[in-house]
Amino acid sequence: MKAEIISIGTELLLGEITDTNASYLASQLPLLGIDLLWVTQVGDNLGRMREVLERAWGRSDLTLTSGGLGPTEDDLTREAIADMLGEELSVDPELEQWLRGFFSSRSFSMPKSNIKQATLIPSAQAIPNPRGTAPGWWVERGGKLLIAMPGPPGEMQRMWEKEVSPRLRQRMGRQIIVSRTLKTFGYAEAAVGELVGPLLSSSNPSIGIYAKPDGIQLRITAKAEEKQVAEEMIAQREAQVRSILDESIWGTDDETFEAVVGKLLSQKGLTLATMESYTGGLLAHTITSVPESLTYFKGGIVATSDEVMVSFGVDAALIAQHGAGGPEVAAAMAEAARSRLAADIGLGITGATRPTEAGQAGRVYIAIDDGKNKRVAGGTYPPLLPELKRRATYHTLLELRKALLSNK
Amino acid sequence: MKAEIISIGTELLLGEITDTNASYLASQLPLLGIDLLWVTQVGDNLGRMREVLERAWGRSDLTLTSGGLGPTEDDLTREAIADMLGEELSVDPELEQWLRGFFSSRSFSMPKSNIKQATLIPSAQAIPNPRGTAPGWWVERGGKLLIAMPGPPGEMQRMWEKEVSPRLRQRMGRQIIVSRTLKTFGYAEAAVGELVGPLLSSSNPSIGIYAKPDGIQLRITAKAEEKQVAEEMIAQREAQVRSILDESIWGTDDETFEAVVGKLLSQKGLTLATMESYTGGLLAHTITSVPESLTYFKGGIVATSDEVMVSFGVDAALIAQHGAGGPEVAAAMAEAARSRLAADIGLGITGATRPTEAGQAGRVYIAIDDGKNKRVAGGTYPPLLPELKRRATYHTLLELRKALLSNK
Repeated sequence: MKAEIISIGTELLLGEITDTNASYLASQLPLLGIDLLWVTQVGDNLGRMREVLERAWGRSDLTLTSGGLGPTEDDLTREAIADMLGEELSVDPELEQWLRGFFSSRSFSMPKSNIKQATLIPSAQAIPNPRGTAPGWWVERGGKLLIAMPGPPGEMQRMWEKEVSPRLRQRMGRQIIVSRTLKTFGYAEAAVGELVGPLLSSSNPSIGIYAKPDGIQLRITAKAEEKQVAEEMIAQREAQVRSILDESIWGTDDETFEAVVGKLLSQKGLTLATMESYTGGLLAHTITSVPESLTYFKGGIVATSDEVMVSFGVDAALIAQHGAGGPEVAAAMAEAARSRLAADIGLGITGATRPTEAGQAGRVYIAIDDGKNKRVAGGTYPPLLPELKRRATYHTLLELRKALLSNK
Repeated sequence: MKAEIISIGTELLLGEITDTNASYLASQLPLLGIDLLWVTQVGDNLGRMREVLERAWGRSDLTLTSGGLGPTEDDLTREAIADMLGEELSVDPELEQWLRGFFSSRSFSMPKSNIKQATLIPSAQAIPNPRGTAPGWWVERGGKLLIAMPGPPGEMQRMWEKEVSPRLRQRMGRQIIVSRTLKTFGYAEAAVGELVGPLLSSSNPSIGIYAKPDGIQLRITAKAEEKQVAEEMIAQREAQVRSILDESIWGTDDETFEAVVGKLLSQKGLTLATMESYTGGLLAHTITSVPESLTYFKGGIVATSDEVMVSFGVDAALIAQHGAGGPEVAAAMAEAARSRLAADIGLGITGATRPTEAGQAGRVYIAIDDGKNKRVAGGTYPPLLPELKRRATYHTLLELRKALLSNK
């Protein structure tokens, strides 16, 4: 099956946003055994969209579009598809009812212009979008397939995962492709490449290496006639990778750092509290991104000044003696968080150098206190504050995972 | 001048890398007054590359390519251009000498396959590339222009900045383009479109509307022979937009919410402290994303449980009487943050309904306490936790900005 992606939106052509939808979809298609041959970006212009759609419809079996399904005048994807296929747009009563419900559940009345989001053509079925007001279109005619998805990456990815990908998988038939992602933290991309180097030359199972915000990921992909065979190939290769990368692997597939750690805490019936300086709330924010965190996260203190540290239980003499950014204070912060917030485990993060926009790399100390043991780890992170906060936060969660796994 | 970008490389179509070259070039072209109409990604396949190049050469005045200039067999950009124009490739002696020098200066002997990087066609001039072994091509024939640049972003960007952009600027002559972005929060995209509707039909100055995580942005762009004239056109249009959208405009151009609020706090010499439940640390994290926040942000409390609220100064009787998620407790949290953390201004955020992955929309209350006045605002946000946290955080910063501007 030959596929093509069309990313729609003048903001792409103005360089205001980067087309991450195309690379997301491009990374998904091989899992279905679908070959991607072209990607095109086009602006919100009816004539040019129509031309690009027409070429895609002619040369590809499957066309995936993202963008242009919004309610405003320059959202023209529906119009362009209808025009290209010579079909009439009309409001679908069911879709209209759903759309009005979407607004009323948020205590808004629906703006007039949104009605176009309830339109269909005879060859199109609506694809549900619980995250926004733009349903997708599944267009099928004469053996060709065109799937129109919304542009916001969160809405597009959910629609792909829950609706589009399962339906395409059914169509693709016997060749089974299975993949598994192993998520690491701590190694650089090139270092991971060197460590697993000998495994990279195999094409089935294959290994791809990807740098992501939460670390380096390895994706193992296997093809076979039967699912079980593909899964065995994966399991074997996974075991080899795990023997090399060991504790730096913290999760698999869709797992997030915060969910992995949250699950361990829940299983063990332990509660958590934090006191952070450099990460400025990002650690608490990350932990509380899991709805279930309400059951195990007691709370956090963002102690960006010495006086706040002291007022929440860090010994002023300790700060005077060792400096607020050292391992001693990190340990005291973890202990203070644990006792002040009545939790089983306290985390403390503080830093030895102040990062600035152009400044030196940041040295950060991470402490974990479970009432019996204190562990302190250190890391050196890039000098840019956003990157430092993120890396220090993930490093903390990696250390917490290790601690939870070692305390039986 | 109509332009087109072609990004070349099978790794793009496999989703292994995201096409940041296209978005970089796309962001550069408006500054030269060049309109970008198409972006295409194509794999390392001679037939498909030729087809894409031919279409571009036919419909565009300027075609920019990146990628496919390496020394290996699947680097086919030169071959495809030569093929498309019906010209012969031959080794250019000067280029060969430079290439051999590149290798010998690094104490390598040149691998045989690299000689193809020293080839040209009659219509092409070489563009220097001090960062790598792939010189670019400047191809000019019959009034059309095709510029081939290497794929690695560092090499491509340097070539663009130092070689290509200055030469294009000379060609483009006097036309000056100026743009200005106004950032709003609180209105939906469609609502902004309706409010400024009558202004959208003008093409100079033009207005584009974009949905971003921190709200809806309007970009006003003006073209004129002189910079001052373009700037006056922008100023006039900006005044009209401001009279319509008023206080919901919180920033311009590259400004962020946290920087805008931080600057106001610094100017007034005021300090800030926070106590947040639903946003779980995201408010503190956002505020501390500005390095200067160390001077005005005293600290924050992430109070995800009633007992933490109480232990940091919220009256337990108040929670019992009104519930932890109401406006009364939001106000008490703001007051507690202000007094406990010895700040001039305290912010409190709490919510009336617990959001879940599939649950009902979240009702959140935001309180600001400056020691004299308490303001409480409320908002209803999408039921997804990450979206709720983000929207509630930005709403809080919008309210804080309003409060800071009204207290002279």
